[in-house]
Amino acid sequence: MSRRESAKGGLRCGELGEDRLLEQILPSLPRHRGVVRGAGDDDCAVVKTENAGVLQLLKTDCLVENIHFTKDARPELVGWKAMARPLSDFAAMSGVPQFALVTLIVPSKTTLDWVKKLYRGIDKAARAFQVSVVGGETSSTDGPAVISVSVTGVVEKDRWVSRGGGKPKDDLFVTGRLGGSLGGRHLRFVPRVVESRWLTKNFTIHGMMDLSDGLGADLPRLARASGVGFELDDTALPLSPGCTPKQAISDGEDYELLFAVSPKDSLSLMTRWRRKFPNIPLTRIGRLTGQSKIKNRKFPAGYVHFKKR
Amino acid sequence: MSRRESAKGGLRCGELGEDRLLEQILPSLPRHRGVVRGAGDDDCAVVKTENAGVLQLLKTDCLVENIHFTKDARPELVGWKAMARPLSDFAAMSGVPQFALVTLIVPSKTTLDWVKKLYRGIDKAARAFQVSVVGGETSSTDGPAVISVSVTGVVEKDRWVSRGGGKPKDDLFVTGRLGGSLGGRHLRFVPRVVESRWLTKNFTIHGMMDLSDGLGADLPRLARASGVGFELDDTALPLSPGCTPKQAISDGEDYELLFAVSPKDSLSLMTRWRRKFPNIPLTRIGRLTGQSKIKNRKFPAGYVHFKKR
Repeated sequence: MSRRESAKGGLRCGELGEDRLLEQILPSLPRHRGVVRGAGDDDCAVVKTENAGVLQLLKTDCLVENIHFTKDARPELVGWKAMARPLSDFAAMSGVPQFALVTLIVPSKTTLDWVKKLYRGIDKAARAFQVSVVGGETSSTDGPAVISVSVTGVVEKDRWVSRGGGKPKDDLFVTGRLGGSLGGRHLRFVPRVVESRWLTKNFTIHGMMDLSDGLGADLPRLARASGVGFELDDTALPLSPGCTPKQAISDGEDYELLFAVSPKDSLSLMTRWRRKFPNIPLTRIGRLTGQSKIKNRKFPAGYVHFKKR
Repeated sequence: MSRRESAKGGLRCGELGEDRLLEQILPSLPRHRGVVRGAGDDDCAVVKTENAGVLQLLKTDCLVENIHFTKDARPELVGWKAMARPLSDFAAMSGVPQFALVTLIVPSKTTLDWVKKLYRGIDKAARAFQVSVVGGETSSTDGPAVISVSVTGVVEKDRWVSRGGGKPKDDLFVTGRLGGSLGGRHLRFVPRVVESRWLTKNFTIHGMMDLSDGLGADLPRLARASGVGFELDDTALPLSPGCTPKQAISDGEDYELLFAVSPKDSLSLMTRWRRKFPNIPLTRIGRLTGQSKIKNRKFPAGYVHFKKR
């Protein structure tokens, strides 16, 4: 018996990261001919629509009490975060979110007041991005509260950006500031849907994703999906106030965009971005390289669900 | 302070049924111009597509350990049920399910073996109905396991059946047998997607839903949505082996179809059904009436989440 197996019932989920757990499960599932990008391959799933120029995006995400928020977190903010997280995945692919389904699982002792405030936060985030909540499901539980939100939407076929489009020598950019999100920003962040739509309207974005697990976990994912390596200039990182570069790389829950563009576009991008979004930093943090293997084993990992740290 | 409010924090979710909880929350949420049928109004949400003849359906549903399945339930069957439940809602509207998103929330001590078996059940149900699982999300929890499944699909505009189309004097039919589902059928039922598609291809179905909470809870919902009353012939109920009429009305989790058709179609329907589906009973259990109020307060309720019994 391998060291990784426990005496009863084999390997435990806690010994795997989320990526590896999904890898174990997903490849066996059936794939419809309409599926362009399937389970676990990108920020959203991508399927064909009856209009050849338009793709549909689908994404589901959940918040679990004690894991993604604490008991004393303000319910309005928990609701905001529950909706904003999948919208951030739409931003990652330059999609337009449209419809949402919300599942709420709470202990029966939960007050109606708490639930109403939670929905106020969901509502606020939905309105901010013209998303319509079309379905609701509730259940009781004898455990922690769970809020699960599924979102569907669309993206023009010629504006869809995957993680896998990065090319060697591309410049790497991030929006906003990184690190220290657990101080409060993880409950209040604004998904970069507007910025992402502007990017693909005005520039050719080779590869993009949102930073949910931290640059240290997410940048290698983008590089791997693109079949390239990367160089990170950690003196250039846009740090949140009071944060170290290590925190900017490892804390996670930044919900900023990480993307790759041709270096010939970089100057124009930075100039026009500053004019369009004067309050949101845009920072060149490094570049993609030709080496297809990431060799720097010291690169710290971001937040990985299930993995014990 | 009203008797229904507790000393701290107002009304508790456990004091409301699921319907009333959703009523409290949903009307305030924003509605997109593409929404045909919104949150909580029917078995699935209905939204427009770019093809005027086709509507998109969306549905989310969840299973919570200790509420919808027990710790010792076979994981393959739990997976089957998690996928089959939202598919039953597609059957209720005569929809064709296409794509699914699966969220799995489990304690880190859960074995990979259990999770793989669960996915085997999800996979089996998905394949049986040509559904493609396009997205997966996992999270850890310190509470009971949760499996949440969201499904999208389509229905022709002229074949969509809502709960609200029943007319006075319509005959009421149910498929299959009712009652005793918790003996095992609730984990193994076959959603009536094929049968529902056949019904709308060959007959005009005025109103339809799936029986998830039991006839006692669901029939009044269909009548209310249709603005009519009903008469139930409880001597005609198709009882599961060993079940009483009371069980057939109250047990819930039957996942059979309840639908209303014009009495002039009833004989032809019964004859052709028997030829097409010889192993599935189809039973006329009563009719819709002109009275718009349901007066029989003794009518027992089916299983209602949150409500203490």
